[in-house]
Amino acid sequence: MTANTESLNKPEALRSLKWEENALLMLDQRLLPEETVFLRLTTPEQVWEGIRELKVRGAPAIGISAAYGVVLGVLQFAGNTRELAAEAIKQAEYLATSRPTAVNLFWALDRMKARATALAAEGASTSEAIDALLEEAKRIHSEDEETNRLIGEHALTLFEDGMGVLTHCNAGGLATSKYGTALAPFYLALEEGIRLKVFADETRPVLQGARLTAFELQQAGVDVTLICDNMAGHVMSKGWVQAVIVGTDRVAANGDVANKIGTYGVAVLAKAHNIPFYVACPLSTIDLSTPTGDDIPIEERHPDEVSRGFGKRTAPEGVAIYNPAFDVTPNELVTAIITEKGIVRAPYSDSLKKLFSAE
Amino acid sequence: MTANTESLNKPEALRSLKWEENALLMLDQRLLPEETVFLRLTTPEQVWEGIRELKVRGAPAIGISAAYGVVLGVLQFAGNTRELAAEAIKQAEYLATSRPTAVNLFWALDRMKARATALAAEGASTSEAIDALLEEAKRIHSEDEETNRLIGEHALTLFEDGMGVLTHCNAGGLATSKYGTALAPFYLALEEGIRLKVFADETRPVLQGARLTAFELQQAGVDVTLICDNMAGHVMSKGWVQAVIVGTDRVAANGDVANKIGTYGVAVLAKAHNIPFYVACPLSTIDLSTPTGDDIPIEERHPDEVSRGFGKRTAPEGVAIYNPAFDVTPNELVTAIITEKGIVRAPYSDSLKKLFSAE
Repeated sequence: MTANTESLNKPEALRSLKWEENALLMLDQRLLPEETVFLRLTTPEQVWEGIRELKVRGAPAIGISAAYGVVLGVLQFAGNTRELAAEAIKQAEYLATSRPTAVNLFWALDRMKARATALAAEGASTSEAIDALLEEAKRIHSEDEETNRLIGEHALTLFEDGMGVLTHCNAGGLATSKYGTALAPFYLALEEGIRLKVFADETRPVLQGARLTAFELQQAGVDVTLICDNMAGHVMSKGWVQAVIVGTDRVAANGDVANKIGTYGVAVLAKAHNIPFYVACPLSTIDLSTPTGDDIPIEERHPDEVSRGFGKRTAPEGVAIYNPAFDVTPNELVTAIITEKGIVRAPYSDSLKKLFSAE
Repeated sequence: MTANTESLNKPEALRSLKWEENALLMLDQRLLPEETVFLRLTTPEQVWEGIRELKVRGAPAIGISAAYGVVLGVLQFAGNTRELAAEAIKQAEYLATSRPTAVNLFWALDRMKARATALAAEGASTSEAIDALLEEAKRIHSEDEETNRLIGEHALTLFEDGMGVLTHCNAGGLATSKYGTALAPFYLALEEGIRLKVFADETRPVLQGARLTAFELQQAGVDVTLICDNMAGHVMSKGWVQAVIVGTDRVAANGDVANKIGTYGVAVLAKAHNIPFYVACPLSTIDLSTPTGDDIPIEERHPDEVSRGFGKRTAPEGVAIYNPAFDVTPNELVTAIITEKGIVRAPYSDSLKKLFSAE
């Protein structure tokens, strides 16, 4: 069956990113689910803004976007390859300033910088180097899909038919190239006829759970129920949840996990109800150079996201608002971390290190 | 100093309810903080709808509204006093169907029914009975203010200068006649120069925390910071919160507490951070005839409150949504219950009973 007839039988899942005719097509996720608009980006500045303004979000998707952003910065480059490598590094360093927490951003940019440096050392021509950098960005993009499928397969071994599973924010296809990390097992369960009942936290302030997770799972035919963030405890106390699974923006060397604000609260609630709390991510999200969660910078965002997020003002003018974008869940609340190389458990300072040494 | 010059020096706190010229003036709290609109209600049906549609909310304010609703149902009554009592009871039973969880509603209506029955037995004239029922409703209204002040004084003994205190939903002046229950100590602290730093959960889906608590505390000059519900755990983990205080819609005989959805999650988080969790309420909220939290009916509300709460759709069309309006916090998570008669602690099955026997 070709991809084409497949898409006739079943609408193809919405992709967050596409490379087409020397441009990055970025789905403006801020407009979902009401509108499906692809932005045609042709400069690193546009990619920087797309990341900063949450047009694209999700740690893997941010990394992929930034890699293409480096390519856009050198696509018309006319100097020699050494100059091109310097320019690519400069653009990568600029793109790294778009958001501080997700480590995939830095990981993808480091890969692009290393490739540019190697191409200069190898004496490639300028046009060869541009082609090779585009290939590297496409490889980061396509590898992510395979990685997510593997994460999904490992995660699915933790779930059983009939289970209720709660997730927070969106670590789905829209946050990655395809499948997602935390949502990957739901797509695979559907393929395999395993029935899971998913609860999606709406995830204030930007409502990625309501706008993206509920949307993409509903589109795919997954049994999903949307709740407000503050209903998670109540739903757990009713016995409707047998597992929690979330994505992450950075895992520290000791297994502390930074993820969308509210994840920590869900982890505390899960523990209080004896529900396992799983974190799904590619190895590129694990940062052994960050010792603990205390060392992960937590982005604070504009109060308007809280006070006027729904189309009209919902808080009094001028009131103080605290709006951290992420929180850190300490490793003792994390039952397991699910990667493309398998499932690891505490003590994470050992098990995470081993994941990389086995590469 | 007269009430009038007081209001010149300092804007009078917004009152949720006023009786004026044979009508109940009800502040439409759904429009706050953007618009301040008083609805002029002249029938029990309008009061029923006002309660049902959350134009008025907060357990004490609902009870006061319903009491006035009974008065509106008999204001023009032309029959004899026994017929009037029957009509008042009929209207009270109708008004009791407006919302199921807050026990103050039933408590206030029972008081009105008892008064009507007594007036018929005493042989009062029809016009005397109508006047007396209005007096009873006004008494319920004015007693609430005194009750709340006492709750605030008791609660304030639990707080110290410089403390951070988190609250959920709105148990403030707008939820009551004045001062509120959970918010009463903040108003009194201000009067006494005790500095408290308040964190207000926005309280999805209807955002009573953002629209009402943050608004009324800001108006009064209290140091208040608005957060999303899912930030409470993060704020606690930072060490910024030394106490939690909330209101309640019904306390069962064993000390289980029904309150706005999300309260249970906050209580679990408070326990995990060794932060005391206080519940403030008048005796009229304590229902010794409800044995445990399992016996409290939990209202489920329309999914639209979650999917299109604030001017635009924020969830995909047709997605399943679960929208319970309340949850139950088990007594073991409740550090103390603060009433107008003082502070009680576990075991609640004893201490709550004693509160009433001491009446």
